Amino acid sequence: MTDAPDTAIAARSALFEQMQTIARRETLPFFRTAMTIDNKQAGTGGYDPVTEGDRNCEAALRTLIEKHFPEDGIFGEEFGNVRLDAPFVWVIDPIDGTRAFVAGVPLWGMLVGLMHQHKPVAGLAHQPFIDEAFSAPGNGSALWSKSDETRAMATRATDALSNATLMTTTPALFDGKERAAYDTLEARARSVRYGTDWYSYALIASGTADIVVESGLSPYDILPLVPIIEAAGGSVTDWHGAPLATVNDAFSGQVLAVGDKTLIAEATELLAPAAR
Amino acid sequence: MTDAPDTAIAARSALFEQMQTIARRETLPFFRTAMTIDNKQAGTGGYDPVTEGDRNCEAALRTLIEKHFPEDGIFGEEFGNVRLDAPFVWVIDPIDGTRAFVAGVPLWGMLVGLMHQHKPVAGLAHQPFIDEAFSAPGNGSALWSKSDETRAMATRATDALSNATLMTTTPALFDGKERAAYDTLEARARSVRYGTDWYSYALIASGTADIVVESGLSPYDILPLVPIIEAAGGSVTDWHGAPLATVNDAFSGQVLAVGDKTLIAEATELLAPAAR
Repeated sequence: MTDAPDTAIAARSALFEQMQTIARRETLPFFRTAMTIDNKQAGTGGYDPVTEGDRNCEAALRTLIEKHFPEDGIFGEEFGNVRLDAPFVWVIDPIDGTRAFVAGVPLWGMLVGLMHQHKPVAGLAHQPFIDEAFSAPGNGSALWSKSDETRAMATRATDALSNATLMTTTPALFDGKERAAYDTLEARARSVRYGTDWYSYALIASGTADIVVESGLSPYDILPLVPIIEAAGGSVTDWHGAPLATVNDAFSGQVLAVGDKTLIAEATELLAPAAR
Repeated sequence: MTDAPDTAIAARSALFEQMQTIARRETLPFFRTAMTIDNKQAGTGGYDPVTEGDRNCEAALRTLIEKHFPEDGIFGEEFGNVRLDAPFVWVIDPIDGTRAFVAGVPLWGMLVGLMHQHKPVAGLAHQPFIDEAFSAPGNGSALWSKSDETRAMATRATDALSNATLMTTTPALFDGKERAAYDTLEARARSVRYGTDWYSYALIASGTADIVVESGLSPYDILPLVPIIEAAGGSVTDWHGAPLATVNDAFSGQVLAVGDKTLIAEATELLAPAAR
């Protein structure tokens, strides 16, 4: 007999606390030190840094998951995928924002998501240096915590792009057609912030940002954040306004996140010409 | 009889601890709350937010300074200038990065600088949410602290732009001619981060970033950071490679900061066509 999904999800999100301990232990000793940085795109002219912190953190998270739930699947950035057809699949980005990490900017974070039957149902985003976490344990709540303080999160109402704070990591994410669509959207927004990586999605859930538009993402960059934004009242879609594909499907990499769902129509109308 | 400058500077930087307490008290209650945001460019189509946190923090800092050193000048973002011809002048930005502040991004900070005879001699940059500070008390040391931990800072060696991590708040800072010069420089850098406000200068001092290029800055945005970078081994100049003008002179707003001074020649050659 299998546990009911709610019970099974709660048992899994009970690991979030230990996952934060792992992230602090495996990443902080490298932050703002002269660390070894490998370039995953070496020889291509590109720059995609990975550090010992990334690898050690993912390895420790996988060990924890395999100890408690050996039947679960795992989709990780650094060490590949196992059992993706299992009822529960974990999605791991040990350090989202490795470029921020190696540059000393404290907006990198550990992302861990849980999917049930291909649907994101729980998620954790943790910034060890600030000791801050954004999480959705799967019971409908979205929680922010810092050190010993915990609060519920909720998105804010914003009825039009002209009142919206937009975030994206960098316009360099977008190819030609995407860039044109993005630029039109950016010009309509009230204000824009760059350089935010995963943190912008956490701020949507916190109710201090309204919309994030990105492209070129991998499933582990965004799936852990979907339950957090949804539990706070917002929505994450592709550029058509449809639910994101998961690790079992072709993932377009185009992401739109909003705190107020009424923004989806205005945004997707502008993004449609470049939507894949 | 007047104190020797060293003694007088030490007496003033002894206020840095109390200034951090003020910043925490006056800014954190507003961070990530539904706060009142005034637009200083209202009616112009621009957006330059200011909050009660900005005003309360600067007012409290001015009260502290006037209590201990009533003869000193003060140049502040929100409440104007007094006694700018005094031997010592304080430069205050109560919340540098107000856009980050209102968007919930924890890279805003309180900046306080001390000038002696128009030369920046001590500085403090404090991020209350992270409880992190970067300071130069004027005795030649550059210090990083977080909660109860304190370490000395030093810039890192980087001999060419092709090995450098570049930071700037947003390319939108630059006008047409500036943008062309900046784009050429950005294309030479190994990697680039946007969205960093004052924090990028602190990372130069920390040795995790190599070069910052910005335009449109006011004296209070940068003068407090100059002694911190210099004490850590780096340099802050205008786009000609000359020392920055201070609050008593015409300030071009064009800033170049490097951790390794050998970068100045390569950078200023590229920026020269747009240097004012």
